[in-house]
Amino acid sequence: MFENISIIGPGLLGGSIAMAIREKNLSKQIHIWARSEASRMKCSEQDWCDLAHDTLSDAVKESDLILLCVPVDKIIPMFSKIINELKPDAIVTDVGSVKESICEEANKICMGKTVHFIGSHPMAGSEKQGMDNASAKLLQNASCILTPSKDCSNIALAKLEQFWNALGMKVSCLGAAQHDALVAKISHLPHVLASALCTSFGDLGLDDFKHAGGGLKDTTRIAGGSPEIWESILLQNATEIIDAIDQLEREIKRFKTHIQNKDSKSIHEALKDGQSIRKKIEEAQQ
Amino acid sequence: MFENISIIGPGLLGGSIAMAIREKNLSKQIHIWARSEASRMKCSEQDWCDLAHDTLSDAVKESDLILLCVPVDKIIPMFSKIINELKPDAIVTDVGSVKESICEEANKICMGKTVHFIGSHPMAGSEKQGMDNASAKLLQNASCILTPSKDCSNIALAKLEQFWNALGMKVSCLGAAQHDALVAKISHLPHVLASALCTSFGDLGLDDFKHAGGGLKDTTRIAGGSPEIWESILLQNATEIIDAIDQLEREIKRFKTHIQNKDSKSIHEALKDGQSIRKKIEEAQQ
Repeated sequence: MFENISIIGPGLLGGSIAMAIREKNLSKQIHIWARSEASRMKCSEQDWCDLAHDTLSDAVKESDLILLCVPVDKIIPMFSKIINELKPDAIVTDVGSVKESICEEANKICMGKTVHFIGSHPMAGSEKQGMDNASAKLLQNASCILTPSKDCSNIALAKLEQFWNALGMKVSCLGAAQHDALVAKISHLPHVLASALCTSFGDLGLDDFKHAGGGLKDTTRIAGGSPEIWESILLQNATEIIDAIDQLEREIKRFKTHIQNKDSKSIHEALKDGQSIRKKIEEAQQ
Repeated sequence: MFENISIIGPGLLGGSIAMAIREKNLSKQIHIWARSEASRMKCSEQDWCDLAHDTLSDAVKESDLILLCVPVDKIIPMFSKIINELKPDAIVTDVGSVKESICEEANKICMGKTVHFIGSHPMAGSEKQGMDNASAKLLQNASCILTPSKDCSNIALAKLEQFWNALGMKVSCLGAAQHDALVAKISHLPHVLASALCTSFGDLGLDDFKHAGGGLKDTTRIAGGSPEIWESILLQNATEIIDAIDQLEREIKRFKTHIQNKDSKSIHEALKDGQSIRKKIEEAQQ
């Protein structure tokens, strides 16, 4: 599909994507750049890495597709660094969870250049971090949202869609602002919630948690995610996340009031509403 | 272990317990009582049911151990109905998620009788309901909390501990009030939260949820639980649950304030606290 692909930042997602590219045979050469020398050494031993480069410039200059797999606050600085090193008609994408500000900035950087930036958000993650936990399976059947700007190249967009599809992902396109509002609800809010639930247990210890069932385990799983990655997501999508938190706070308050009033009918209705929305979530993921 | 065991209410938990009793060969005969004739008919075809009785009296009169596997608001009415039908030294237990009020009432009912009531709470459930989803595996390695009263028979307690152990559960004892405060946090609060998270999505549809990753699925799983069962749990443990909700609301507010203030250091610290408590939850369940 491509002659050369570059993965900048071979962490959990970058590593998983590189593995899937090799597995599906989508590129002749896979170029990797990692910040630390230790990571570059490790990459050079993997069968999904043809060349682990010491410099960013070497890592990107031959590539047709460049994936910036770094935390959201590092994407634009990284793109600025490589913009003048890229081949004509190179396609650059990212894997960040926030899109509006990144795509706006990236479009500014592209102005007057023959480089195409299109934002991607593969909705594939894990509470585990780093290359050691990477797996091509992570991407299988997961959603990947692209946020092309209105005037982006149709050819570049078609190639990028084809790429994520070939990795086994379910591709769709949304406006960047629409994306940010949606993921604030379906991804960022659950993360804040799982974290807040955990911190509300500050007075409990290991022995208390031994009594817990599978419900607690599932509800808190994502709170295990990287504070570094999530700190920048929460900052970059602050406005939308605060709206989503406001809405949730109202719902929690509603439950609390019904319980305080021992209003069994309203409790039942609220639980039934929750159950029916949960059924939709399940249905959507089948 | 026992000559005769009765399961009153062969739903998800009652059915799973009956299956495990048969699998581990813990009783010569398993007696079942279900409210509906259709359920009794269905039970009579299962290899974990020796006798599906039409009357409660017939279902319990020969048994050494009686398990009341009905919703929490039905346990005491059910126990009142059978108390005069029981054999001397029969042990009665339940599987309810709330213990203090139930154990108090049950002890009153036992007064002057030769029957032993000891509360049990097997922390094994599923968002799926009913006998059709029952499985002996549900109980394997799960926690089972007993809440014996101070003056309960040591022999009866030892037998009941031995019973749950033999089913593959990890048995521990807590005071009934202590149990209720703990499960308000580690079980009832996550349920309210998962439900409230779902109802906060009232403006989203199937197409929106198609974009979601595994995090949303896990965080909302338990919201699929039975509104009937959870309505009575939330009512019976209202005071403790409201305390737990208050604590959670403070934590959510704290996250929101940090995000509003774009206070990256405090966001990071809060996420790190959440992550470290999540690690404890994971460690406790290994």
